[in-house]
Amino acid sequence: MKKQLNVVKIGGNIIDDDLNLFVFLSLFADLKGAKILIHGGGKIATDLAAKLDVPQVMIEGRRYTDGNTLKIVTMVYAGLINKTIVARLQFLECNSLGLTGVDANLVEAHKRPRKPLDYGYVAEIDKINISVITSLLAQGLTPIIAPITHDGNGQLLNVNADTMAQEIAVSLAKMYDVQLIYSFEKEGVLIDINDKNSVIRSLNPPYYKQLKQQNKIFDGMIPKLDNAFKAIEQGIKAVIIGNAKKLDQLIKGQSGTKIEK
Amino acid sequence: MKKQLNVVKIGGNIIDDDLNLFVFLSLFADLKGAKILIHGGGKIATDLAAKLDVPQVMIEGRRYTDGNTLKIVTMVYAGLINKTIVARLQFLECNSLGLTGVDANLVEAHKRPRKPLDYGYVAEIDKINISVITSLLAQGLTPIIAPITHDGNGQLLNVNADTMAQEIAVSLAKMYDVQLIYSFEKEGVLIDINDKNSVIRSLNPPYYKQLKQQNKIFDGMIPKLDNAFKAIEQGIKAVIIGNAKKLDQLIKGQSGTKIEK
Repeated sequence: MKKQLNVVKIGGNIIDDDLNLFVFLSLFADLKGAKILIHGGGKIATDLAAKLDVPQVMIEGRRYTDGNTLKIVTMVYAGLINKTIVARLQFLECNSLGLTGVDANLVEAHKRPRKPLDYGYVAEIDKINISVITSLLAQGLTPIIAPITHDGNGQLLNVNADTMAQEIAVSLAKMYDVQLIYSFEKEGVLIDINDKNSVIRSLNPPYYKQLKQQNKIFDGMIPKLDNAFKAIEQGIKAVIIGNAKKLDQLIKGQSGTKIEK
Repeated sequence: MKKQLNVVKIGGNIIDDDLNLFVFLSLFADLKGAKILIHGGGKIATDLAAKLDVPQVMIEGRRYTDGNTLKIVTMVYAGLINKTIVARLQFLECNSLGLTGVDANLVEAHKRPRKPLDYGYVAEIDKINISVITSLLAQGLTPIIAPITHDGNGQLLNVNADTMAQEIAVSLAKMYDVQLIYSFEKEGVLIDINDKNSVIRSLNPPYYKQLKQQNKIFDGMIPKLDNAFKAIEQGIKAVIIGNAKKLDQLIKGQSGTKIEK
């Protein structure tokens, strides 16, 4: 039987707030068994860019990563946020270690082509080299991963944290029973966007198909959910979407939306 | 017989210059056998502090690390410089991984007392936990270490890179034959401060004592050399001081100043 592994993605809004982050990290530190944390960036990078007069261009809701923005996100994600999280987890007696996709060549990638849309120094992932993660987990260490990687030619690249979390989780599914948890400030997938108590507790492929046909899934959620079902097909046991401050309940299936076969 | 290990400290002036850094990293990547790199910070943090209007106070030649400066050095040392170096080493086919003292609790420390001189959020090292390093080395990975650590209570701390390099090297001397290399823009320890060709090629305790008595050692070098001799007493095979762009020659004892018993 394979060992359990929880791969947790923590969203930006939680990182921006010291108290929320500490509540989440306390719950994360208390999780039993093998676990990995992948964090996003939040507003800190945007605020730093404003202070440094580096204009931030958004292209269809995504940050355009020019050379100066790449330096900023590398400093903020891989430096400040990653080491702040690791230091707090050490205090919470969770022996952790920070990584990016560059370290031990964890995430092989290339710069996303300029067409159809140019996002600048942004990665498309080619391959995950999981040996560094499995070795750290075997030593009882918890990897904390920042969404920065490289192209193998010395060029750093910005990478979407959701995609990175999913690719890493899928790669580990051969060796572990993986649950992938997308945790953020919301309760889960809602059936009524205006009612935060309308969380869909469980989704499987036929039910998802039915809800889509009835136009009951919020458009913005469809790419995320399509990805989650793709991850399930690739061997992940469950994808859970929900509130970071209820991480313990999410893991047990007592809160959020659980997606499985 | 113990395996050889080179612990290389690279100074700030080399990091500030892209071309110098690349020359150094190419030589470092080509070094055979187990190796570790510890890097300083250079002017990038000072420049960023100026752009962000964070005044930099110097106390007896050292940076006072207030809360904002701590954020800046964490971003620059652990984020930008560390990941830039690791990405370039990956391109040079040296499979490396970035660390700080926080990661896997590598460097246990406490905040330096305020008396006699208050340097702010600066670390005094208590203990090195080398197991993460020996495990990475056993996997053929090269650790690249940034001078940031923590106090175990969730507080990040700035740490002197020279001291960190020495403490890590001493801790590894039980398991490896360690050479500690301080590489920077100069040729080595000079007998005449105005003549860069006057490098002392070899120093042992009696010769050092003699040179000190003759006032032939530049005052600024004395603390560094006292530390080097202390490291030798603690089991390090040799300390080598010299030009980063001649790293291959330094390692072979063909350049720089070699300090041994």
